[in-house]
Amino acid sequence: MPGRLSVVGLGPGSDALVTDQVRATIAAASDAFGYFPYIERLQGLGHLQLHASDNREELARARQALELAAQGRQVLMLSSGDPGVFAMASAVFEALDGATPEQAQRWAAVDVEVQPGITAMLAAAARLGAPLGHDFCCINLSDNLKPAAVIERRIRLAAQADFAMAFYNPCSTSRPEGFARALRVLREECEPARLICLARNVSRPDETLRVVALAEATADMADMRTLVIVGNRLTRQVGRHVYTPRSYPHA
Amino acid sequence: MPGRLSVVGLGPGSDALVTDQVRATIAAASDAFGYFPYIERLQGLGHLQLHASDNREELARARQALELAAQGRQVLMLSSGDPGVFAMASAVFEALDGATPEQAQRWAAVDVEVQPGITAMLAAAARLGAPLGHDFCCINLSDNLKPAAVIERRIRLAAQADFAMAFYNPCSTSRPEGFARALRVLREECEPARLICLARNVSRPDETLRVVALAEATADMADMRTLVIVGNRLTRQVGRHVYTPRSYPHA
Repeated sequence: MPGRLSVVGLGPGSDALVTDQVRATIAAASDAFGYFPYIERLQGLGHLQLHASDNREELARARQALELAAQGRQVLMLSSGDPGVFAMASAVFEALDGATPEQAQRWAAVDVEVQPGITAMLAAAARLGAPLGHDFCCINLSDNLKPAAVIERRIRLAAQADFAMAFYNPCSTSRPEGFARALRVLREECEPARLICLARNVSRPDETLRVVALAEATADMADMRTLVIVGNRLTRQVGRHVYTPRSYPHA
Repeated sequence: MPGRLSVVGLGPGSDALVTDQVRATIAAASDAFGYFPYIERLQGLGHLQLHASDNREELARARQALELAAQGRQVLMLSSGDPGVFAMASAVFEALDGATPEQAQRWAAVDVEVQPGITAMLAAAARLGAPLGHDFCCINLSDNLKPAAVIERRIRLAAQADFAMAFYNPCSTSRPEGFARALRVLREECEPARLICLARNVSRPDETLRVVALAEATADMADMRTLVIVGNRLTRQVGRHVYTPRSYPHA
């Protein structure tokens, strides 16, 4: 009997942000693949065979999970947040798309499904108020898999479209320049009072939220655990909350 | 004792896509406000006083909910999907921001919080595969609260940035032209083979998914219950799934 590969989203950190669908799928699974810290979240679930691997091994991880599912196992592929937003779902389909004829034959009967989760930008936006309440875009600032020039161009065009923006992976130890580059483009395109929201470790006990004007924002305000939301030109503060109005005026 | 206003997301339709956080908040609430069909989803929860209202009454609904919370009630404001994405969270903060001095005084002690949910684009993307696996944007096609020219400009700039795009509210009975306008702009900016995904009633028993090339897409393929996802220029099909690769080439 062919198995199943379920690519699931665990949400940003708090167990209260997991859906019932994902919880039920974890309970019925035999194996779980994922990056070390996500596998860590399933420790103590004795029915699961855990297969932790490192960052940047996404394609190899996807292939291993497909092999096990082809043997009839009920396999989980874990992502934090939502698996479809800068996470494992695309890697699984890349593995399927790039399969050798032998792999394709073995994997053909595997039932591959994706189950959504609360992605970091939605959790961060909720904690901040409603900064994504009008049209917005979502950009991964890592230049690991795309040229820095493409990132710059997208931020510039997004600013010209007056999208609010959510930035994933603003910087990491190995690539510290991501957020600095973004701030440079934003300063060229946006007014100094533009609101920049920095949400770190959202939904976890050590969550921090910070809102500053673009003029005061500095690159060291974000690290790899920070989700950045840039308001559009109408984004405002009311009390401790930040929101973007639903309406947009005629020019 | 001041009450609380919890703005919560019920997800796109299936009860399996509700988070534990929202489920617990519903269980502890005294009153629920929302658009008729969302209130419908709570029928049978006898502990709740239900306050249903019509579309386009969002600000009035927000004010009523704040009044009740100011009287010490535990009030829910319901949205489908995520409350922060084209839903009630911004309306609540607009009400707070536009309060009269008397209202501001009454509402000052209310604890306002937002709880995220699975928004339609994440649920649709998961069912389709991973079309939002690279940078993307999210545009409400309704010109109810913004000029049509702003929508056109945003779609054009998003295509030039090569964002995948999620379109909410592609059309409605009173505003049928939204998706037709979007298709016209896309045909000017994108190649005819660009993938257009139409997800209707996602996560419900009558869900339908359809994927067509831009050249074959017609305005009548979307209605108010459809979430549209436009791929970027690299978005591909593998088997029955659609995905956008994580990598983007150098020009």
